[in-house]
Amino acid sequence: MKQVKHMFSETYSTQIQHRIDQKTKPLGALGLLEDVAHQLALIQSSNAGELVTRINITKPTAILFAGDHGIADEGVSIAPSAVTQQMVLNFLAGGAAINCFCRVNDIHLKIVDTGILIPVESDSADFISQRLGTRTDNFAVQAAMSEEQVLQGIALGKSIVLQTIENGSNLVMFGEMGIGNTSCASAILAALSGQNVEKCVGLGTGISPEQLQKKIDLVAQGVARCDRSNPYQVLTEVGGYEVVQLVGAFLGAYESRTPVIVDGFIVSTAAYVATLIEPACREYMIFAHRSQESGHKLVLEQLQANPLLDLSLRLGEGTGAALAVPLIRAAADFYNNMASFESAGVTV
Amino acid sequence: MKQVKHMFSETYSTQIQHRIDQKTKPLGALGLLEDVAHQLALIQSSNAGELVTRINITKPTAILFAGDHGIADEGVSIAPSAVTQQMVLNFLAGGAAINCFCRVNDIHLKIVDTGILIPVESDSADFISQRLGTRTDNFAVQAAMSEEQVLQGIALGKSIVLQTIENGSNLVMFGEMGIGNTSCASAILAALSGQNVEKCVGLGTGISPEQLQKKIDLVAQGVARCDRSNPYQVLTEVGGYEVVQLVGAFLGAYESRTPVIVDGFIVSTAAYVATLIEPACREYMIFAHRSQESGHKLVLEQLQANPLLDLSLRLGEGTGAALAVPLIRAAADFYNNMASFESAGVTV
Repeated sequence: MKQVKHMFSETYSTQIQHRIDQKTKPLGALGLLEDVAHQLALIQSSNAGELVTRINITKPTAILFAGDHGIADEGVSIAPSAVTQQMVLNFLAGGAAINCFCRVNDIHLKIVDTGILIPVESDSADFISQRLGTRTDNFAVQAAMSEEQVLQGIALGKSIVLQTIENGSNLVMFGEMGIGNTSCASAILAALSGQNVEKCVGLGTGISPEQLQKKIDLVAQGVARCDRSNPYQVLTEVGGYEVVQLVGAFLGAYESRTPVIVDGFIVSTAAYVATLIEPACREYMIFAHRSQESGHKLVLEQLQANPLLDLSLRLGEGTGAALAVPLIRAAADFYNNMASFESAGVTV
Repeated sequence: MKQVKHMFSETYSTQIQHRIDQKTKPLGALGLLEDVAHQLALIQSSNAGELVTRINITKPTAILFAGDHGIADEGVSIAPSAVTQQMVLNFLAGGAAINCFCRVNDIHLKIVDTGILIPVESDSADFISQRLGTRTDNFAVQAAMSEEQVLQGIALGKSIVLQTIENGSNLVMFGEMGIGNTSCASAILAALSGQNVEKCVGLGTGISPEQLQKKIDLVAQGVARCDRSNPYQVLTEVGGYEVVQLVGAFLGAYESRTPVIVDGFIVSTAAYVATLIEPACREYMIFAHRSQESGHKLVLEQLQANPLLDLSLRLGEGTGAALAVPLIRAAADFYNNMASFESAGVTV
């Protein structure tokens, strides 16, 4: 990862750490929650132009980007492309895991069709159709999409996030759904990181050893056409409609200086691409969890990320990000409300 | 750990797993949350005498046991015993980390004085004084307490839990506060597990290398008097007032067949003692987190436990348990509300 010149005030950072260290607990005893509190307080102080003594979290929102992939025709998944649409209907009906986790954790949920094979009709205000096409082309044999589609997708992803923030959310997270999208993310990761394709490809939703070998071979075919130095070209060759909109979404969160919770393998890969386009956006990312999907470890290394959760999840949809929200609220609450040694009369 | 004959119906277990596997997700994709849902559904089905299709969580309650330790006079902690009382006052005023995490996660909190050096006055309904003495004797040189105190403490810990459950809580968790109590837990662990004292002793709230060596030597003196085959004798020699009440609390949760969330090192050590007295109580334990305190890893191994969280916490108070509650609620919600492949029309 390119180094970013430290973009926040050292003074705020020191003051925030002092506040955390004066709380009634041994130094550092709240572990990763202290890092999250520090990061949020630093972002909000920087945005406010003064030291923030209360971290404010309003209307956390998950945006779930769904898209279909030509590569799915090759049998690299346990399910056919039609399942993408069926799952979108499930999201709209409130029956999926992400619906459950958003409901219990008081998170607003939006569903975006970025280009699924079979479009759906919905008059829900939380459903947004911004399709880049029917589905991507099969990247094993040709470019997944045009450069115009990449740029349009980034712009659309950015715009939905800016609108969400405009409507009162100051903490966002992204999810994805798309049969074939672990193949796509593996190809992007291999192309941009220079890692071996074998290390970047995993079992997805649970394929057989034979399917895994085929998936590796197909991903390698796409990667062979990629120019490692050009993220846009890589997205054109092996990207996905939901992935390019995810990249735009991360750039939009950065543009509005809004913290964003990063989910599993596919979303993290899009986050990685975003940092290659705009390294400073890394500073706004909170990493939710370690996925079971094997490539995720590599992406997290590229991003120098140490996620909050490690629950052996491998579902996507933004489920890991949604599960991390209560930890982030807890971090904000201790920063805001926990007594100091002085205020509590504790004499350590 | 002694093996427990499987105490739950195989039929329920199979039916519950089938329900989980029919949810709209790849098999096993919700990782540890699936284990939690399975465990809760199995306990509640067993209690109800029929398969439970909705896991019900009512009034989750944290009970925080505070006690002081004679060993603290030896300088094995960064803080003097007076801090135990100061922190109890902080708990009562709502200013500690556990207060923050209970508030954000909608958990009821009770504070129990099991014998702190300087008693406090409080008319709070959530403060319970059930003191076993002023504080334990210094276990480096003599037995920490009498056998009567051990038995009385177990009975009192059991009774407060049974009363909590009687009042409507069906999910409990325990915390602790007591300067010197990592020394006490390390001694208990070393005595009962047969592990080297060095491996069982850690840095507690953050002592120096010199203090650490002294702590190891003092713990070893206590352990030398212990009879590994007798948990009650070990508690008498090197126990703590809060620890014996914690042991009773776990036995009480088992007596009423109520699931209990296990916090960090000290609470887990009490859980371990409880399993040596009544092996079946292990089946009701949900492990919240891996503490940074070095002995915790050993206790978790003894209990064959794989906790939900690993946040580098080392605070105690029940903070790790309180932070795990939203994950447990999420597990219950997906079990209760997530669509099945059939109901959602998903054709995988």
